[in-house]
Amino acid sequence: MITREECEALDAGDELAAIRDEFTLDDREIYLDGNSLGPVSSSVKARVDEVIEDQWARGLVRSWGDAGWMAQPTRLGDRIAPLIGARAGEVVVADTLTFLIAKLVGAALELRPDRHVVLTDVANFHSDLYIIEAICARAGRPITLRAIDRDNLDDELNEDVALVELTQVDFRTGEALDLKGITKKVHDVGALMLWDFAHSTGAVPLDVEGADVDFAAGCTYKYLNAGPGGPGFMYVREVWQGVLKNPLPGWLGHARPFDFELEYEPAPGMQAFVTSSPSIIALAALDGALDVWNRASMDQVRAKSLAMTDLFIQLVEERLPNVFEIVTPREHDRRGSQVALGHPDGYGVIQALIERGVIGDFRAPDICRFGFTPLYLRFVDVYDAVERIVEVISTGAHLDQRFAERNPVT
Amino acid sequence: MITREECEALDAGDELAAIRDEFTLDDREIYLDGNSLGPVSSSVKARVDEVIEDQWARGLVRSWGDAGWMAQPTRLGDRIAPLIGARAGEVVVADTLTFLIAKLVGAALELRPDRHVVLTDVANFHSDLYIIEAICARAGRPITLRAIDRDNLDDELNEDVALVELTQVDFRTGEALDLKGITKKVHDVGALMLWDFAHSTGAVPLDVEGADVDFAAGCTYKYLNAGPGGPGFMYVREVWQGVLKNPLPGWLGHARPFDFELEYEPAPGMQAFVTSSPSIIALAALDGALDVWNRASMDQVRAKSLAMTDLFIQLVEERLPNVFEIVTPREHDRRGSQVALGHPDGYGVIQALIERGVIGDFRAPDICRFGFTPLYLRFVDVYDAVERIVEVISTGAHLDQRFAERNPVT
Repeated sequence: MITREECEALDAGDELAAIRDEFTLDDREIYLDGNSLGPVSSSVKARVDEVIEDQWARGLVRSWGDAGWMAQPTRLGDRIAPLIGARAGEVVVADTLTFLIAKLVGAALELRPDRHVVLTDVANFHSDLYIIEAICARAGRPITLRAIDRDNLDDELNEDVALVELTQVDFRTGEALDLKGITKKVHDVGALMLWDFAHSTGAVPLDVEGADVDFAAGCTYKYLNAGPGGPGFMYVREVWQGVLKNPLPGWLGHARPFDFELEYEPAPGMQAFVTSSPSIIALAALDGALDVWNRASMDQVRAKSLAMTDLFIQLVEERLPNVFEIVTPREHDRRGSQVALGHPDGYGVIQALIERGVIGDFRAPDICRFGFTPLYLRFVDVYDAVERIVEVISTGAHLDQRFAERNPVT
Repeated sequence: MITREECEALDAGDELAAIRDEFTLDDREIYLDGNSLGPVSSSVKARVDEVIEDQWARGLVRSWGDAGWMAQPTRLGDRIAPLIGARAGEVVVADTLTFLIAKLVGAALELRPDRHVVLTDVANFHSDLYIIEAICARAGRPITLRAIDRDNLDDELNEDVALVELTQVDFRTGEALDLKGITKKVHDVGALMLWDFAHSTGAVPLDVEGADVDFAAGCTYKYLNAGPGGPGFMYVREVWQGVLKNPLPGWLGHARPFDFELEYEPAPGMQAFVTSSPSIIALAALDGALDVWNRASMDQVRAKSLAMTDLFIQLVEERLPNVFEIVTPREHDRRGSQVALGHPDGYGVIQALIERGVIGDFRAPDICRFGFTPLYLRFVDVYDAVERIVEVISTGAHLDQRFAERNPVT
């Protein structure tokens, strides 16, 4: 049986341990929901204050140029690029993930005008499904959208397929898909590959260049800790830049925005995918949130993430044999940075845990989700969380009548 | 000749004068660019701090429900509604103005499936022109987009027209269009009317209900002072709600977002036009910025605005006869809250003024723009600004060689 002392020893040897001090966390709680919304770090507040109190308050409209506001979408893109294995100039921060999926799907379909099928995953996050369907309906030609079981991808891939969109880490199960292998299969039939990195960026190492990924998009409020509704980011492989056309163009993506020309002419590079003025305050929060990555490598984060999820799975199996279905894959290369436990009373389990200071979340129909975020979680947190799960299950707290009717807004 | 003492007397009698104290302004400067980016007010900082330090830092993911984050787009829409003459439930805050124009144009075209013409103004802001063209190209049927001279609107209106989109106050000239009269003409041929309120909201009284406006959208970073890249807002007349379909749907517009359903079913009311998570920090800034409107009515603001723009025009004519073309209309009902002065060396005039602490801006080819914002400007500011213009023109400072080649990024 693993002991708390062993977990303390792991923390004592943890190279990332000191980074926790950058985050505001309540020591009476164990926050295992950073895969939904990451916590605030000290640099966030400092950067937001600087933008509001100095750049906006004093510089006013001049700060669009003088404080570099115009360049923030591409500058922040360059800060995110190393986290996904992209080069400088291949990533831009803008809008939200759903709008970026819209832009990329709309644009990609124009690159394969003789093909009429788009494939996505029926288990995908629903916003992806809704926006892809809407964009396919406006492609200017009939497009068949198939939301498939991703395990059947091989059967569905053929020369009718224009584009495949998949989320690299499943938001419910935490399963990580094979970035390189799937991208290669898609390319082998001449289709294009768009990855959703919502649950991947800052959570698992990504090598878009090595995997030959065409396009990707992600969000910044989960493992990048940029705050609620933080902006999205998108990646376009350098070879597609200048070829791929932004289907939702605006003045800030124009080659000469201040010439106010009647005809749209895209700016070079990723700037062409900026539509209109982003919230500079929201970008400042992201800018600050990225500072912690100056002190942590993706390899360090991944090693600690796997150690934590391994530990959690092992503790659950030792302490609660046969109580939960371990939904997340055991194989390291198929695991993101969360563990999903299946339980018929999963909603009650999560609610009872929240009452005991362990914050996870529930995803219908029966998934208890626990995110493990190496920048600010300790191995003792994993241990203590499992103690609380044991307490809930052993006392039947999860069966409380208050949880009988699942509240969908949690 | 108007004297500075007369202006001081106007300030002494100004009911809105005390509101200036809410804003951070440098008393060595006169800020006449609030029609581009409004300044920061004290409530902005307070609300942003509350969201970051309390709701996000302590509440974490629970604040989506507990702190009302989910409801912010419609709650803030209800705060903006009175400023445009809309009812509660007819306005939502989301995305940026360009995306909202995209949503409204795309949706409106589906309401007139047997018509194939969209009219807009060739003098419109360019982001509107680019996005309308892009959305028309994806309408699923051939659409002819005509960017017309708005003075020829009568000749262009006929039963082929599905939609007319106009900006209510011209961003260059400051001319205000007749909201009610134009909307009626458009309706008389059976077309729909979409107004862009970018330079109207918080600047001129608007009565969307009295004018029978179908749809409108605006931004919040000009006369609403919500900060750089603040979110947009959109209005959909109650009768169109439930009929108009969001063409860029996402999970937050779903009737049951946490049920993660495969089929998109729009939420009731304006929530259906929310696509995905907005920046809660950006919404907090807007929330704070709207507080000053608790102390000012749109009628008070309009009365002071007209008094200020009258004063400015009169001073320019008295002190600088025949130096500038007064581009903005003299008639009150055709004037927004800015004055545009035409001058062949307009770029140099603005640069020389900025060096002397008077902040206006330049719009090609020859427009000097001065925004008059009653919430924080004084009548003596108008007087002093004209003094500085006199100084620039009389010394030839605007002809300095440094300004000879117009710098487009200003």
